[in-house]
Amino acid sequence: MPEHTQKIDPLSDEFFMKAALDQAIEAYEKGEVPVGAVIVSKGRIIARAHNQTEQLTDVTAHAEMLAMTSAFNFLGGKYLDKCKLYVTLEPCGMCAGAAMWAQLGELIFAASDDRRGYRSINPKMIHPRTQVTHGVLQDECRALIQQFFREKR
Amino acid sequence: MPEHTQKIDPLSDEFFMKAALDQAIEAYEKGEVPVGAVIVSKGRIIARAHNQTEQLTDVTAHAEMLAMTSAFNFLGGKYLDKCKLYVTLEPCGMCAGAAMWAQLGELIFAASDDRRGYRSINPKMIHPRTQVTHGVLQDECRALIQQFFREKR
Repeated sequence: MPEHTQKIDPLSDEFFMKAALDQAIEAYEKGEVPVGAVIVSKGRIIARAHNQTEQLTDVTAHAEMLAMTSAFNFLGGKYLDKCKLYVTLEPCGMCAGAAMWAQLGELIFAASDDRRGYRSINPKMIHPRTQVTHGVLQDECRALIQQFFREKR
Repeated sequence: MPEHTQKIDPLSDEFFMKAALDQAIEAYEKGEVPVGAVIVSKGRIIARAHNQTEQLTDVTAHAEMLAMTSAFNFLGGKYLDKCKLYVTLEPCGMCAGAAMWAQLGELIFAASDDRRGYRSINPKMIHPRTQVTHGVLQDECRALIQQFFREKR
């Protein structure tokens, strides 16, 4: 493929993680911890959200939670077993617990969160049928969060 | 104390759990898994909620989540370190994760949930400063849930 046509495949994990990163950038611009998420069904983004805990004064307003609620509304059902959730940071216990109830089909996260990520609580807390991939665009996603906390200090 | 004046002390755990049970009964009447919660600040109920996952088609709409969001609104802040959350069933991983972020002061739950309760995931997933009590009105709260599932079958 000639170099000028080398772009991100529109159905790849990178493509959708880029959309999640765009959400994280929106959060960053609003002074929120920059985490973004999108939910994909049949190759199409059906929900986009970013962390809004400050704006809403609500610790439950994580990107994943808002994206899942939005996806339930879109689908008219409360299961996401045929959906993929892309998120720029490893989900916390709350978000992993929500994904368990939703029977999420696939979880793709970028950066790991060794301190608050669900894997440090119990890697089996998500649904046993949820496929997990991580590391997609992790450098970009982690750099944004690090920049945020550097500026906060 | 003469028998006719023996009632529940209005600032006791039983009193507030009864208020949570009233919420659970509301859920039951609407065909929801009957779980109810209240949040208490300075001896006063500042939030009441019951499970609404069916009505809202949203697995994140657990009683505790709705009550916490309501309490954040009431307090205008996103920490519940001076609050007590009363809930008729042991919180799941999602709700325990939310309580961790909220730095909940006290968690009082009635019935244990051996299958989905947070203690089976990781008892340390709540905030280290959250005091936990359980068993308050557990028979009544458990009986309501058992009745619900018996009728569902």
